[in-house]
Amino acid sequence: TKRRFPWKMIIQLLKIVLVTGQLVWFGYDRSSHVNFLIKSTVSFKHLFLQGWDPAYETLPYPAPLGIFAIYTIDDFYLKLNHAWKMYNEVWPNSIGSFTPNAKNHTFPPMYLCKTFFRDGWVNPRNGSYSLHNQPVEECIALTKSDCEFWNNTTNSTEYSYDIKEYLQKINKTIDFDSLVKMEFKFSVRSVHLKNFDLGRNEAECFDFNITILLDNSAYSGQMPVTLDADANPFICYEEDEIDDTEDDISLAFIVYDIIVIIFSVTSTILCSRSLYRAQRLRSDTVMFFKKQRGIEMTLDDRMQFLNLWFIMIIINDIITVIGSIFKIVLALIAGSFIYIPSTVDLYEMCGLTLGTGSLLVWFGVLRYLNFFEKYNILIITMKRSFPDVLRYLICALIIYAGFTFCGWVVLGPYHVKFRTISAASECLFSLVNGDDMFVTFSVITGNDNVYIWYYSRAFLYIFISLFIYIILSLFIAVITNVYDIVKHYYQHGGFPETDLS
Amino acid sequence: TKRRFPWKMIIQLLKIVLVTGQLVWFGYDRSSHVNFLIKSTVSFKHLFLQGWDPAYETLPYPAPLGIFAIYTIDDFYLKLNHAWKMYNEVWPNSIGSFTPNAKNHTFPPMYLCKTFFRDGWVNPRNGSYSLHNQPVEECIALTKSDCEFWNNTTNSTEYSYDIKEYLQKINKTIDFDSLVKMEFKFSVRSVHLKNFDLGRNEAECFDFNITILLDNSAYSGQMPVTLDADANPFICYEEDEIDDTEDDISLAFIVYDIIVIIFSVTSTILCSRSLYRAQRLRSDTVMFFKKQRGIEMTLDDRMQFLNLWFIMIIINDIITVIGSIFKIVLALIAGSFIYIPSTVDLYEMCGLTLGTGSLLVWFGVLRYLNFFEKYNILIITMKRSFPDVLRYLICALIIYAGFTFCGWVVLGPYHVKFRTISAASECLFSLVNGDDMFVTFSVITGNDNVYIWYYSRAFLYIFISLFIYIILSLFIAVITNVYDIVKHYYQHGGFPETDLS
Amino acid sequence: TKRRFPWKMIIQLLKIVLVTGQLVWFGYDRSSHVNFLIKSTVSFKHLFLQGWDPAYETLPYPAPLGIFAIYTIDDFYLKLNHAWKMYNEVWPNSIGSFTPNAKNHTFPPMYLCKTFFRDGWVNPRNGSYSLHNQPVEECIALTKSDCEFWNNTTNSTEYSYDIKEYLQKINKTIDFDSLVKMEFKFSVRSVHLKNFDLGRNEAECFDFNITILLDNSAYSGQMPVTLDADANPFICYEEDEIDDTEDDISLAFIVYDIIVIIFSVTSTILCSRSLYRAQRLRSDTVMFFKKQRGIEMTLDDRMQFLNLWFIMIIINDIITVIGSIFKIVLALIAGSFIYIPSTVDLYEMCGLTLGTGSLLVWFGVLRYLNFFEKYNILIITMKRSFPDVLRYLICALIIYAGFTFCGWVVLGPYHVKFRTISAASECLFSLVNGDDMFVTFSVITGNDNVYIWYYSRAFLYIFISLFIYIILSLFIAVITNVYDIVKHYYQHGGFPETDLS
Amino acid sequence: TKRRFPWKMIIQLLKIVLVTGQLVWFGYDRSSHVNFLIKSTVSFKHLFLQGWDPAYETLPYPAPLGIFAIYTIDDFYLKLNHAWKMYNEVWPNSIGSFTPNAKNHTFPPMYLCKTFFRDGWVNPRNGSYSLHNQPVEECIALTKSDCEFWNNTTNSTEYSYDIKEYLQKINKTIDFDSLVKMEFKFSVRSVHLKNFDLGRNEAECFDFNITILLDNSAYSGQMPVTLDADANPFICYEEDEIDDTEDDISLAFIVYDIIVIIFSVTSTILCSRSLYRAQRLRSDTVMFFKKQRGIEMTLDDRMQFLNLWFIMIIINDIITVIGSIFKIVLALIAGSFIYIPSTVDLYEMCGLTLGTGSLLVWFGVLRYLNFFEKYNILIITMKRSFPDVLRYLICALIIYAGFTFCGWVVLGPYHVKFRTISAASECLFSLVNGDDMFVTFSVITGNDNVYIWYYSRAFLYIFISLFIYIILSLFIAVITNVYDIVKHYYQHGGFPETDLS
Repeated sequence: TKRRFPWKMIIQLLKIVLVTGQLVWFGYDRSSHVNFLIKSTVSFKHLFLQGWDPAYETLPYPAPLGIFAIYTIDDFYLKLNHAWKMYNEVWPNSIGSFTPNAKNHTFPPMYLCKTFFRDGWVNPRNGSYSLHNQPVEECIALTKSDCEFWNNTTNSTEYSYDIKEYLQKINKTIDFDSLVKMEFKFSVRSVHLKNFDLGRNEAECFDFNITILLDNSAYSGQMPVTLDADANPFICYEEDEIDDTEDDISLAFIVYDIIVIIFSVTSTILCSRSLYRAQRLRSDTVMFFKKQRGIEMTLDDRMQFLNLWFIMIIINDIITVIGSIFKIVLALIAGSFIYIPSTVDLYEMCGLTLGTGSLLVWFGVLRYLNFFEKYNILIITMKRSFPDVLRYLICALIIYAGFTFCGWVVLGPYHVKFRTISAASECLFSLVNGDDMFVTFSVITGNDNVYIWYYSRAFLYIFISLFIYIILSLFIAVITNVYDIVKHYYQHGGFPETDLS
Repeated sequence: TKRRFPWKMIIQLLKIVLVTGQLVWFGYDRSSHVNFLIKSTVSFKHLFLQGWDPAYETLPYPAPLGIFAIYTIDDFYLKLNHAWKMYNEVWPNSIGSFTPNAKNHTFPPMYLCKTFFRDGWVNPRNGSYSLHNQPVEECIALTKSDCEFWNNTTNSTEYSYDIKEYLQKINKTIDFDSLVKMEFKFSVRSVHLKNFDLGRNEAECFDFNITILLDNSAYSGQMPVTLDADANPFICYEEDEIDDTEDDISLAFIVYDIIVIIFSVTSTILCSRSLYRAQRLRSDTVMFFKKQRGIEMTLDDRMQFLNLWFIMIIINDIITVIGSIFKIVLALIAGSFIYIPSTVDLYEMCGLTLGTGSLLVWFGVLRYLNFFEKYNILIITMKRSFPDVLRYLICALIIYAGFTFCGWVVLGPYHVKFRTISAASECLFSLVNGDDMFVTFSVITGNDNVYIWYYSRAFLYIFISLFIYIILSLFIAVITNVYDIVKHYYQHGGFPETDLS
Repeated sequence: TKRRFPWKMIIQLLKIVLVTGQLVWFGYDRSSHVNFLIKSTVSFKHLFLQGWDPAYETLPYPAPLGIFAIYTIDDFYLKLNHAWKMYNEVWPNSIGSFTPNAKNHTFPPMYLCKTFFRDGWVNPRNGSYSLHNQPVEECIALTKSDCEFWNNTTNSTEYSYDIKEYLQKINKTIDFDSLVKMEFKFSVRSVHLKNFDLGRNEAECFDFNITILLDNSAYSGQMPVTLDADANPFICYEEDEIDDTEDDISLAFIVYDIIVIIFSVTSTILCSRSLYRAQRLRSDTVMFFKKQRGIEMTLDDRMQFLNLWFIMIIINDIITVIGSIFKIVLALIAGSFIYIPSTVDLYEMCGLTLGTGSLLVWFGVLRYLNFFEKYNILIITMKRSFPDVLRYLICALIIYAGFTFCGWVVLGPYHVKFRTISAASECLFSLVNGDDMFVTFSVITGNDNVYIWYYSRAFLYIFISLFIYIILSLFIAVITNVYDIVKHYYQHGGFPETDLS
Repeated sequence: TKRRFPWKMIIQLLKIVLVTGQLVWFGYDRSSHVNFLIKSTVSFKHLFLQGWDPAYETLPYPAPLGIFAIYTIDDFYLKLNHAWKMYNEVWPNSIGSFTPNAKNHTFPPMYLCKTFFRDGWVNPRNGSYSLHNQPVEECIALTKSDCEFWNNTTNSTEYSYDIKEYLQKINKTIDFDSLVKMEFKFSVRSVHLKNFDLGRNEAECFDFNITILLDNSAYSGQMPVTLDADANPFICYEEDEIDDTEDDISLAFIVYDIIVIIFSVTSTILCSRSLYRAQRLRSDTVMFFKKQRGIEMTLDDRMQFLNLWFIMIIINDIITVIGSIFKIVLALIAGSFIYIPSTVDLYEMCGLTLGTGSLLVWFGVLRYLNFFEKYNILIITMKRSFPDVLRYLICALIIYAGFTFCGWVVLGPYHVKFRTISAASECLFSLVNGDDMFVTFSVITGNDNVYIWYYSRAFLYIFISLFIYIILSLFIAVITNVYDIVKHYYQHGGFPETDLS
């Protein structure tokens, strides 16, 4: 068929450039935003957790250390006292501009909450216990004055951070046998200055609701200590603002986003038109066949009229438009034009949509490579091998599901890589592709249960051999086969003709 | 053949759902159980081993640290004194509800056992030694009063934990030249509260028999220190139990397990019937051929009557029934209906049977995919390539066995991944599949024996090249070939017919 | 065609030996040079950075520790004071022969530079801030006398290194809210004795401009501390030089390099001549076809006259000559015959050119293997599969680009392996080839955003399955296909003939 | 051809059992021997190296720490003083039975050796230096009395280990500018009790010559500290030996070894006979063809008479016999029947020969599988694809060599995996097989030279793509092709006949 001036192609190619440009800029902006949140949490861990070590900040797997936990009651109070002290002294001791979330110039208290079984007790000596109801939570507020005292020798106000002593003073005790968890809750404010290396002095303001959790719910003598910082943005304003180059820059970005939206909408309209025309042609043809030849067209033949490329491009455009709108909203927030409380999730949603949009935009290019014969062979092979591969994947997935469940149940408690169902699946998937095999074997040592040791060896050898030697090889066989067929048709004048021709 | 209403299929599909549900619940329960045991052991290491570091709690390979060991005599006594002190003070110093296993309100002693050569001595100066018999063990009991003393200045009972001094007092010495190993043995009780996040306040009680082993059997100056906690369950009872929702929940699970058993038994009966019918048909056919045509049927033809799918399903059902019975027994124990001393192994056995059962249940689904032609091709290919692959695996395994033994003997002492025969096999298996290659090379450095260095290079290059470039490629060739044959038969009207048709 | 005495081949083979020899010697020399610079930087970190740990000197990935940073203001001054003290005492406290870069016998000061917002302030309590202009830098010189004081008790000059106190004395303050970064700048000299194990006592002299950077630009409370040592060579001279064997050795190397140049030039001339002759033949042929048969030769046919091997060899020769000239210049510098300020980059450029030259020289050998039929098949297959593979790579790259951008934007902030676009690309490339899969999954844990968790799983499963199961398999299909064709032609009398024959 | 009773096969199969049994026993024995040496060296590091950390005892790659080194002069003396002190107090402070190598009841001195440039000096301030000759070594003996002094307050002999003070006392100085290396040399004796868990109380005695090296030869301010323990066995004797079960056991093992030798010799004789017969048949045939048909047999045809299996078995037998003889000698040494000074190398040689022997014995089994048709196909495919694969490997190796040299020169100084030529080769080999890819990328960070960064990316992407996508795929193509041919011949009545038939 003759082709008119390829408007659609030009638009698609321009879209790639535009969308990628938009993406890259957004990526840098978001990276700065998320980095601040992550780094701040690291700072809190260094400030508030006594004994925190930079080795805990590396990859979760392979971890260089066991979990951060406490085992003795002395250590328990040490951790609590340190957090209490650091909260009261975070300003001005910390390098970050963290201040307690003080309203009305009063220093806000921190809350010490214990979750425990009321009237519960445990007597391991004879194995008796009593746990009537569900655990309840009880909080006390620790104000700054609670730790203040007058030092007579130095004649000055001093602070003594001793939770144990304080609890005794207010007639509270902690019974570790019935304790489920202990939480320290407080809130800290911070300002994130950003983009000043780009000539823009922007800022984001956050309330961090920090929770230090000492978790005794496993009752195993090991009490993991974690710190969680939940960031809530609040609006901050620049005083004495003079120039407005910043606003100009923000505006430029908004205009850019609008251009992307215009392109996407145009592209959607063009593709919809094509789809619509094809559908009209289809109904005409169906009618023709029915009337003239008295035969009903098959579903497969009808599907020939539905161009999946156009559908993909339309989905892509919709996602891109949504992402761009999110981005404009974020720009408006950053420029203080509008105010929306939780921008954190907006960033996530914008990232997800723009990222997925970009992925599909690149896929769309394949459509245009399709017009060159040599490329066509490859794309056709991919397309035609898809159903076979998918069918085959289903067979493989059933066997895989069996191994995943079995591995999770049998090896899970002894093997860090099978601890959850999703981890077990990821581990087996990695093994199929040749990753981390020796480590997977070595995690279960002879010191563990000997049955488990034998089972794990049999399990892993059989699983890996089965998948790599049979199932992966069969993939290659399937695709080689399809390629041969496609190649053969090309050399002998195209694919066998359908009823339509 | 026409198919009646597919009872068997419905039952199999329901079985998948039921068995997987059962498995998932059991998995979570067992995970909590095993986790408690593992975490408790970690707690004991932190409590009783002086100098224990969380870095020892990570993966055994790649280990971030060398082994936990002592090298000087001062360190030896430091470790012993710490363990003695901590045992006497574990309650109430530990966060876990650990108490010494006190019967009759007396504080039980801990036992210090040394295994040594009686009258043995070693004189490295001139290389003479004398070791008459086999090593003997000698234990002394360390009671709490052994370390008590009256402090005159503070007028209070204090405790001094000094094993060296105490041994001198009772006229015992430790001669490190003839010492084989030193053990510290004591017992600690604990209660595991569990499932209260599910509304059930259950508990398990355990006696942990703890052994701290300082092992000098290598006589190399390095004395590895290990702690082993052997958990023995004992029955614990809840006082003042009011509601019985817990019992209801336990009952519900038992009913669920019984339903699984009923399904499995039904499935077994149906499959056995089919097998029986096929066998009757077979004997009829054999008779017919013998009488009418005078020919003996071949074993291969006879095997055609044996449906391996049914056999697999029957095995599967038996395993599932056994696993479900284990599970019911565990539920009865948890509900305190019956009492069996060692539930630890029951959990293991239940996990192994349920896991294997689930694996086979999923395999069984393939049988029903088999009825669709497109899937059939793939499953047939897998099935038909199996004998070839197996035969081929035998050839590969023979070469592999040679490399495993050779690698273990030659590289074993210098290479952590060849230390045991099973590790050597796992290492080579991982290498074949592309894992951890550079690390395997790098473990043997030029600082080791230079012959070994050259040998290891030659060994690894040849092994990997041989297996990846020739043997793995041949797998692909074999399977591609089988796939081509199967495909060809499908396109030309089915498989060649046998005598029977 | 008959072959005369194979001058070109002899020259090529000699070139391999010569170039490889030259390369190996240069490699050892350069390695010693670069090692000194790297090791010196490590020494500076140990000397000037308080709290530096050897664990920071391992691989950047997987890092055993989080980044080297400070979090409290006390720690900030601790780091500064330590660096100040060590600079003043580096001689004679360090093992290396490091001395401050003292001109005219005065002890040079070190410079403390802060970059900050003038009149900027931040008030996190209510989220107001004021940042008028861009950050400015302000430096103060810290001379040795600034920390000197007279100790009356010991009657001696002592040194007190307390930056905080000193800043107060000179009325300077550090406001961390408006601080962008803090830098400590100083310069240290060192002499690198080398090659004395080869009987040559050579030396290189360097000025190290050291910058300790405490970077607050992220305003997250975490202030990463880095040390950067910029090496500037300066000429050093040996006193009382007696023998001149060293010069002889240097000369020998220069002669060797010149021989390499001569060989390369000869090889270029021979190849150019062949190319020229082929071109003349081509124009004759084109003329002939046009005149005699009236047909225009196609571009493909014309390209047949252009021997790509010769072009590769010529490029190779040019690169080798450039590299050799660099090497001669370096030898002249080492022998103090000439003086060029910055030899650091010369070493790099020489390494790059010689290395690339050597790579191409080895490629050139393939040309001669080409003359044997059995090898020819393989090389031809490689050559003929190249265009298909390349075309296929383009398709794959487009999909790959989509995944790279999408992965970077969506996963980047949460995943260390997607932090930059190049890292994301390397990570995906490694995944395609089966590397580091489980780790890649595990970096994103359920504790992060739950959308991201699901997205990452979907992203990775789809990407890996698509690339390994379809795209990689198709590579094998393409190449198997080409090999079959090539093999077929060989067995049936060569390739189909072109117009020319 | 008809087969007589398969003596050769029976002998080969028995040999597998015998040789593997021999190997396993030897493996355990050797493992205990080498383990003792390795563990002792670890003990020495813990005893004599101040600041030694168990993290240095893990894998050399990926290392959890930078190298063990010192940077300041204070640290230098700290290390020396510690080693001096520990040597004088190793007995009885160490757990191992280590004693100084005391002859004639005198306590042997330790030697402190410095290697330095006599009259050499360096002045980094102006870059002048003077190094006349080669470095020389100078040792001083440190006896125990050198550190003895009389403490007046406690009225007892005390020891002060201060090398710096001592050197001043004897008018020696250490000039770090001209220092090449510092060594501490001393000797320690130890007894290795072994095999008492097998009922045998055996012992090995060793002199460990220990050298602590502080290496300044890089002059970079970093002085790596290493400890090397060279083990020399000496004879030790058991006093008051009573029973002789030990000798009986030793004898049993010697008898076992002799049986292995007998089997190997028999196997050699049988195979030689077969080879001889085949050669006689060959010369007859050659004669026949020459005389009767006047044609000269080709080399290929003649090679048909040479059974490579037999040659492999003969080589295998010879290696096994040598290994068994080594093993008997070791048993005689262990039983104190004969005395040979250095048994360390004997163990190595015995391990190498027995290991290689075992490898070949397993290969030999393939010959007997060859007799079954189905297995034959696979072995023939392997055999016939061998020359093609080898030829192809040569092409690949040439390209590979180019990349190895180039990678070593260009990336070597910046990349731990390209530091030596052998490491570069191992790294590239691992990359081809899909290992450790991301780590290899990540080692070179943007902080290094930016040219190197770009070069490394281009280098790695091109190398990996070329090898995995083209070269590895071609392997599969080659082998699939050979398999198809072999399969085809089998289905159509065997291989094409040669002249001989």
